[in-house]
Amino acid sequence: MPTFKVTLAYDGTDFVGWQRQASGVSVQGLLENALRELDGRDVPVAGAGRTDAGVHALGQVAGFSLLRSLSADAVMRALNARLPDSVRVLASEETLETFHPRFGARAKHYRYRIWNGPVVNPFERRYAWHIYEPLDVEAMDAAARIVEGSHDFAAFQASGSAAKTTTRQIFVSRIADCGLRIGFGPESAFHSESAFRDPQSAILVYDVAGDGFLRHMVRTIVGTLVEVGRGRQRSEWMAEVIASGDRAAAGPTAPPEGLFLVGVEY
Amino acid sequence: MPTFKVTLAYDGTDFVGWQRQASGVSVQGLLENALRELDGRDVPVAGAGRTDAGVHALGQVAGFSLLRSLSADAVMRALNARLPDSVRVLASEETLETFHPRFGARAKHYRYRIWNGPVVNPFERRYAWHIYEPLDVEAMDAAARIVEGSHDFAAFQASGSAAKTTTRQIFVSRIADCGLRIGFGPESAFHSESAFRDPQSAILVYDVAGDGFLRHMVRTIVGTLVEVGRGRQRSEWMAEVIASGDRAAAGPTAPPEGLFLVGVEY
Repeated sequence: MPTFKVTLAYDGTDFVGWQRQASGVSVQGLLENALRELDGRDVPVAGAGRTDAGVHALGQVAGFSLLRSLSADAVMRALNARLPDSVRVLASEETLETFHPRFGARAKHYRYRIWNGPVVNPFERRYAWHIYEPLDVEAMDAAARIVEGSHDFAAFQASGSAAKTTTRQIFVSRIADCGLRIGFGPESAFHSESAFRDPQSAILVYDVAGDGFLRHMVRTIVGTLVEVGRGRQRSEWMAEVIASGDRAAAGPTAPPEGLFLVGVEY
Repeated sequence: MPTFKVTLAYDGTDFVGWQRQASGVSVQGLLENALRELDGRDVPVAGAGRTDAGVHALGQVAGFSLLRSLSADAVMRALNARLPDSVRVLASEETLETFHPRFGARAKHYRYRIWNGPVVNPFERRYAWHIYEPLDVEAMDAAARIVEGSHDFAAFQASGSAAKTTTRQIFVSRIADCGLRIGFGPESAFHSESAFRDPQSAILVYDVAGDGFLRHMVRTIVGTLVEVGRGRQRSEWMAEVIASGDRAAAGPTAPPEGLFLVGVEY
C-alpha cells in the first residue's frame, strides 16, 4: 500500500484541535473524511503533533496509506479540493510504509507569539496572546535559555497527563522582540515611511525546538516566561521551576491562539 | 466642540465596507453607534477613504466632534471598549474643528497583496488575491511605474461613478515580490532554518500612494497589472489604457480581500 507523508498548515481558530473528538471539527477528522471519499474506505491518519483546540500549524506532518494508486501530487490536489481553506496541504510525498509522523520525528519546532502593547492590531487578534503591560524581554530570554538542554519537564505538563517519561531534550529556546509591526510587516520598501506604526506595541516571538514536548509544555513554559517578563519572578526562577517537577510551581498555561507548530524534522 | 482625529485598523472581511448601508455591518456604523453611546446623541463620523466591502485598513482616519469633554486618550479607550476586536482605534488626537479626514488629505497609501502560487497559506486566505499561474513581476512593475505621475484615470473608475474630475496625481506605484513567506514571515532568526517553505509561492505587494483615488481605481489598476503579469499584454499597454479613458479597455477589478488602506497624510 502506498504510504504518504503530507505537510499541512491550518488556522486552528475554529477547530477542537488536531485530534478527532466526540463533537466539534478536528483537523484529523477533516483529513479522514476527505481520505474516505478518496479511497472508498476508512483511512486512519496519524499526526506528528496533537495540537490543542485553537492552536495553529505552519508545518504539521501527517501520514496515511491508501489502497488507490495515486501520485503524491494527486493526493495533495485531491485533499485540497476536499478540505476547507483554513486547512491546506502544502507538500506531499510518497514514503516508506514504516513511516510514522510522531514516533519517527527527530525534532519539532513550535513558535509562540505575544502581542505586547495596549491595542491589538485586528489582524493579529487570532494569532497572538495579548499582554497589555510592557514585558522585560531580556529577562524572559535569559529564562528561556535555561530551558535549553536535557531536563525533566514534569513541572510543565498538563495535570492528569501520563507520559511514560517527562525528560525531553530542548535544542533551542529563545524569545525576541521582533520589532514594531502593523498588519503584515515590512514587506515593502514603502512600508516604513508610510504605514501607521504604533510605538507602544511589539510582537514577541518565542521559538522552541526539541525532540518532543509534553502536553501543554510550550504554553506552560510561555506562561512561566511571562511571569518573569512581568517582573514577578527573576530569570533564575526558571531553573527552580524545572527542578521542582511540580506543575503548581510553574506559571499559568498561556492561551492557545498564540501557538504554532512550525515544523517537524525526521 | 472638541474635534477628534482617530486612526483605525480593521479586518474588512465581515463588513459591508466603511460606509453605513441600509443593511449589513459597516465600520462607520459601528463607530457612530459607539459614539452615540458615548455622547448621548447622534455623532456623524467622516472617514478618509470609503473602503468597499471586504477591503481592510491598517490606517484609516476618521473625524468627529463630541459635546462631552474627553481627552483624546479617553476617546480611544472608550471606542475600543465598545467596538468588536476586528476594529481597533490605534491612535487618537484632538484637532481643529475645521478638520475633515477626506477633504484635508494630502496623500493616501493603499497596498494590494497577491498570493502567487498553487496553494494559499490558510493565514493569508482573507488577506490576498490568490493567483495560481506564475506572474511576471518585472513586467508588472514596469507597467505599475507608468501609473506614476498626473494622469486622467477615467479608465480605472467603477462604471456609474460621477467624480467631478478623474485626474489624480500618483506619487508611487510599484509592485515587488516580497519573497517566500509562510504564515508570519521571517520574524525570528530560527525561521529560515526550521519553518516549512513553499518554493512555488510568493507574496506580491503592490504599493500605491497618491493625492486621491477614484472608486475601484486601485483594484482596477491591479486587475490591469495582472493581465500584464499573465503575459496577455505588454507593460506598455498600461499607457494605452490610461490614454483611452475607457473602463472597458482596462483589466478586471481585482477582488477586495487583497486591498488595504495603509495610511493617510495631512
